[in-house]
Amino acid sequence: MSLVVVGSLAYDAVETPHGKVDRMLGGACTYISLAASYFTQVQIVAIVGEDFAPEDNDLLASRGIDLEGLERVPGKTFFWSGVYSDDMNDRSTLQTDLNVFAGFQPKLPPRYRTQPYLLLGNIQPGLQRTVRSQMNGNGLRFAGGDTMNFWIKDFRDELLATIREWDFLLINDSEARMLSGQANLKRAAKVILEMGPKIVVIKRGEYGAMLFQRNSFFVVPGYLLEDVFDPTGAGDSFAGGFAGYLAEHGFDLEHDQVGRRELRRAVIYGSVLGSFCCEKFGVDRFRTLTRDEIDARFEEFRGFTEF
Amino acid sequence: MSLVVVGSLAYDAVETPHGKVDRMLGGACTYISLAASYFTQVQIVAIVGEDFAPEDNDLLASRGIDLEGLERVPGKTFFWSGVYSDDMNDRSTLQTDLNVFAGFQPKLPPRYRTQPYLLLGNIQPGLQRTVRSQMNGNGLRFAGGDTMNFWIKDFRDELLATIREWDFLLINDSEARMLSGQANLKRAAKVILEMGPKIVVIKRGEYGAMLFQRNSFFVVPGYLLEDVFDPTGAGDSFAGGFAGYLAEHGFDLEHDQVGRRELRRAVIYGSVLGSFCCEKFGVDRFRTLTRDEIDARFEEFRGFTEF
Repeated sequence: MSLVVVGSLAYDAVETPHGKVDRMLGGACTYISLAASYFTQVQIVAIVGEDFAPEDNDLLASRGIDLEGLERVPGKTFFWSGVYSDDMNDRSTLQTDLNVFAGFQPKLPPRYRTQPYLLLGNIQPGLQRTVRSQMNGNGLRFAGGDTMNFWIKDFRDELLATIREWDFLLINDSEARMLSGQANLKRAAKVILEMGPKIVVIKRGEYGAMLFQRNSFFVVPGYLLEDVFDPTGAGDSFAGGFAGYLAEHGFDLEHDQVGRRELRRAVIYGSVLGSFCCEKFGVDRFRTLTRDEIDARFEEFRGFTEF
Repeated sequence: MSLVVVGSLAYDAVETPHGKVDRMLGGACTYISLAASYFTQVQIVAIVGEDFAPEDNDLLASRGIDLEGLERVPGKTFFWSGVYSDDMNDRSTLQTDLNVFAGFQPKLPPRYRTQPYLLLGNIQPGLQRTVRSQMNGNGLRFAGGDTMNFWIKDFRDELLATIREWDFLLINDSEARMLSGQANLKRAAKVILEMGPKIVVIKRGEYGAMLFQRNSFFVVPGYLLEDVFDPTGAGDSFAGGFAGYLAEHGFDLEHDQVGRRELRRAVIYGSVLGSFCCEKFGVDRFRTLTRDEIDARFEEFRGFTEF
């Protein structure tokens, strides 16, 4: 079943200890939709400028991603540049040019509005709420998204009003601490579950991920890559693998017993997609990645975690 | 079957964000032997001064720990004091008084020498080697130990000569990086396996632990405690749980298929004991801890990691 994805399409300049790229396709919506496309039909809502390259459009199309909701307007595409620390656990933003993204007012094409799955990439919480409200309430089965420190700090009330309606929130560990005011992640998750989301997934980078529901939790360590070339997009690829897998399996939160198993597997698939993303710069790994490789790595996770 | 444990008995002064204790029982040998005592007969080799309190002796004896190898000499017991950072991921040593520990020349009582399991707590690598050589080679099934940054940095050759003879090395993540010269832990483990040990267990504090053998590895996330009162001794408690469980099950490295399963479970039991240790100051949690609680937490690990 289809997954609607909303977020940024961008060009990124990135420097890691392994190299430097001055301009490459990026943005949350890009990574999410590429990752999710291995599992389900993806329909994106995003905005780009006149400089958006045909080959980048083709990459998305080649993965079967529905581009009807991709708006093209005069001006330049969102641009971001950043540099990673030596251990790649931190990054500094060097430049953010919103460009056409500054005027982004997401409008869902009519046939998107009845889809059952919705993933709201990291954008201004008010916009996320607008999109959520455009979905036909009866058909929507599972909706949620991602956020970031900037919105938590400076748009807190708007963010709280937004995530109150979500089934799931994806968030990284430092942001979970910031949002909840709790240093301990188990306590942080409890506080966030009180804010509305029925499911909280905390991403811990190389240390893996945690899934919290009211009465259970699940923890998976990170995949041990020998070389991390570029972590850009890993969190969004996680989100795409997570939501894509659930959409593929027709996940329904109401049926809890099945749900619990599928949610855990979705976290593993998220981890798998996040790990592949780090193996090359930008979206390059997605140019050759196959579903067989994804499923093989899922089994690897089983192999190095079971006891 | 019996586990021989060598290491420090000490008095510690510790400050964490949860409180401050001016003098409490500590030392690697103490935590290792208390943790291992839930699984197997433990025989310790250590040294204390005249100030070693009868009630501390009684605590060890109450856990059935064989104290024949505990030497008492004139002078004061090893004293260490330290303070933890707010998130308890770092600690600074304020004071180290070796006292009687400076003259420690471990001598194994004759009936220790034929035991099958040996765990060498973190002491000067030359002393660890002396102890290893006192064991009757024919009876010894599984021997290894722990080390620390100080020996890696300033006693490297001696340390390498020592661990070359070990079946297993327990080491934390930053020390594994220092010993191997590799920032990536999977690469670090490969390098360390080339140094001699057939098994390398890398402890990652709150993030869990990893077990490496030449052809396989295993990763487990850390137990999610809501309150960490005092991490002192957690790594040693891990070591005691790990080696104690293997001794209880008559682990034999030669029989690899069984070995692989038992080693993974030993890592879980190590994690369980390390997590309990953090729940109270110093050794206090061991005053009431039961085997039933330990086994229940082992099952909890299964519950939050299986998918």
